[in-house]
Amino acid sequence: MKIETVKGTRDFYPDKMRFRNWLFDKLRQVSELYGYEEFDGPFLEYLDLYAAKSGEELVNEQTYILESRGGEKLAIRPEMTPTLARMVAAKQNELRKPIRWFTIPNIWRYEQPQRGRKREFYQWNVDILGVESMDADAEVVAVTVDVLKALGLEKGEFVVRINNRYYLEELLKSLNLDLSLEPAIYREIDRIEKLKPEVFRANLEQAGLDTATVEKLETALRNRNFGDFKPLRDLWERLEQYGIAEYVEFDPSIVRGLLYYTGTVFEVWDPTKRFRRAIMGGGRYDNLITALGGQPLPGVGIACSDVTLEEMLEQLGRLPKLARTLDAFVVHYSPAERPTAIKVASQLRNGGLTTELSLSDLSLDKQLKAASNSGAHFAIIVAPAELERGEVNVKNLQTRQQQTVRVEELATILKGQL
Amino acid sequence: MKIETVKGTRDFYPDKMRFRNWLFDKLRQVSELYGYEEFDGPFLEYLDLYAAKSGEELVNEQTYILESRGGEKLAIRPEMTPTLARMVAAKQNELRKPIRWFTIPNIWRYEQPQRGRKREFYQWNVDILGVESMDADAEVVAVTVDVLKALGLEKGEFVVRINNRYYLEELLKSLNLDLSLEPAIYREIDRIEKLKPEVFRANLEQAGLDTATVEKLETALRNRNFGDFKPLRDLWERLEQYGIAEYVEFDPSIVRGLLYYTGTVFEVWDPTKRFRRAIMGGGRYDNLITALGGQPLPGVGIACSDVTLEEMLEQLGRLPKLARTLDAFVVHYSPAERPTAIKVASQLRNGGLTTELSLSDLSLDKQLKAASNSGAHFAIIVAPAELERGEVNVKNLQTRQQQTVRVEELATILKGQL
Repeated sequence: MKIETVKGTRDFYPDKMRFRNWLFDKLRQVSELYGYEEFDGPFLEYLDLYAAKSGEELVNEQTYILESRGGEKLAIRPEMTPTLARMVAAKQNELRKPIRWFTIPNIWRYEQPQRGRKREFYQWNVDILGVESMDADAEVVAVTVDVLKALGLEKGEFVVRINNRYYLEELLKSLNLDLSLEPAIYREIDRIEKLKPEVFRANLEQAGLDTATVEKLETALRNRNFGDFKPLRDLWERLEQYGIAEYVEFDPSIVRGLLYYTGTVFEVWDPTKRFRRAIMGGGRYDNLITALGGQPLPGVGIACSDVTLEEMLEQLGRLPKLARTLDAFVVHYSPAERPTAIKVASQLRNGGLTTELSLSDLSLDKQLKAASNSGAHFAIIVAPAELERGEVNVKNLQTRQQQTVRVEELATILKGQL
Repeated sequence: MKIETVKGTRDFYPDKMRFRNWLFDKLRQVSELYGYEEFDGPFLEYLDLYAAKSGEELVNEQTYILESRGGEKLAIRPEMTPTLARMVAAKQNELRKPIRWFTIPNIWRYEQPQRGRKREFYQWNVDILGVESMDADAEVVAVTVDVLKALGLEKGEFVVRINNRYYLEELLKSLNLDLSLEPAIYREIDRIEKLKPEVFRANLEQAGLDTATVEKLETALRNRNFGDFKPLRDLWERLEQYGIAEYVEFDPSIVRGLLYYTGTVFEVWDPTKRFRRAIMGGGRYDNLITALGGQPLPGVGIACSDVTLEEMLEQLGRLPKLARTLDAFVVHYSPAERPTAIKVASQLRNGGLTTELSLSDLSLDKQLKAASNSGAHFAIIVAPAELERGEVNVKNLQTRQQQTVRVEELATILKGQL
């Protein structure tokens, strides 16, 4: 019986796992440099947690729903912000403010698997709660830029496109639109990058806008100057102080699909838009904590998927080469040396050296070949002639040089040569 | 609207997450010392993967089952060995042998939550495949003992109880039992530690054993000498060479519930049996890879839950104290110093120092109090008088000592004092 992996999932064999660990370490390091603390929640939540604010498409079309054996309606987390908000609301008074948290949970969404998109993925989330001013938004953008730089991306290879939902609201108000049209207009703007201009226009006209209004709207969305709109002015002032204004761009067509965003919204894009979708997305959610039973507490956050980051690094030729590393591989001349080989390996491990022990009684040559294939730095050869003098043979598998070393000094000497 | 966590799950607030990371780091370190490489698989698998070999209770009563939106019957992984076996079978020829892998996945089982048991938990798994001899079994026991020692457990605080399924088979054969009774007998032996002796006896008699046979069986299960049963003799020889014979014990009543075990089975227990269940469990599974469509490949592994380990450390008073650590917290005298405070924080982060930036315009005293509460080592005070000389004030929050430092030397000087 051959069983496949579930569609849209990945097996992390050790080589893939090394990349995942490398990526997570970078995300952790930068988050922690900014004082963010790691958290996590359960993989399953009550479906109600998402029903409130996450948005129709995500909950009704993309969320994996199940009934537990106790008859409870559960959801596999399709995003992490609701869990964060639930946790904050539950212990709101005990938590030091501002709350700076990050996490890298696995997330499931029922979507069509394609380049840069899987049904199961890991999502880095960084959030700050408790700051009303644009200082929080600026800090989240700064962490984002630093994460991308830490992954090896350079200026010109990504851009943070920033908008404010209230700016967009005012813009639509200035067009004197029928209020009932707004949801349809937001939906079209949200996918503007995926639509051809003529389709975008046709959709809006079909929704009830006249041609002149559609033209005005298109012109307004191409505007790259937010004028004296205060939240964006405040934000840009800080971004300049961080020295990252060159990585950002005002773009009034940024909307974000999630219902809980209130002010700033941002997306990271590759400037060529080859991806045709955002690499990261986030924004401000000032009402989410109260929606989940807490006291008012403003929040800002951003999130991105490991699949998209990997895809982006690959396209840019920036995937790191991560060979397997191992300090030592202990081989033996004959079964009679096995007990000593075990002791030698234990001694190396006690000294902190990662050590594989040959468990086969194949010829020494074949064992040495296995040592070479393991990626080990040193092969330790336990053989009777050297053992009589209390020594073992050490072969440096990179330089092919050999030396004999007294057993009791082995760990110390090898550590000095690594 | 207040939403609870799903029953049997945990929220990992930063303090709990610090413990989880500490625990995982220890598990990783020891696994890697033995040359084991980390892997992972998807959180959902086809239900069929478990139906084959995992055992009735686990699949039919404890596994979370769902239908995907595409109508596929999926299971949330209730254990990791079937995923490992599936992955190995799929790339069997490409993988270097022996395969030494470990993983710490999250696992779900629908069980009654209680001390040391949750419905969602993390499970350390360490497995070696491709070794027929007892060398593999001995190595897995050695990793297990080293993991427990690395977590702070000492001799006498745990014992690895070891059996071999074939030993038990021979034992039952020697009692001349009706073969049809065997499943019932195995089931009763598997839960012997949870049953009062009189209940154990009554259950066996009800299953169809006569009183004399039950007595013989009880005596045989109390035997601590495996005689000349070769696999156990070979295993013990190696355990002595590892110097860990004092941590292990032969116990013919160890069975393990999973259907795929073939030879060696082992469980880690606290010697007082206060837990009334195993802390870890594992064994040899020589037929699992073929059951999943691969070529014959023997395997041995062991697994344990993070919940049980935490509970055990807590009972022994060995839980580590893991305070939050942060290098620097930057505060400012007035809004006019905010731009410089941002630059100072960026400079510290570029120097590798974890740094929180005060985003409030409260009084300097209140900001310094926030710095103290953050767990930071240093408070950096950006104030106009010092800034005029190109300096900032640095307060060591442990010693309360203050110094002034030139801004451009700040990161270097603080790193030297950490």
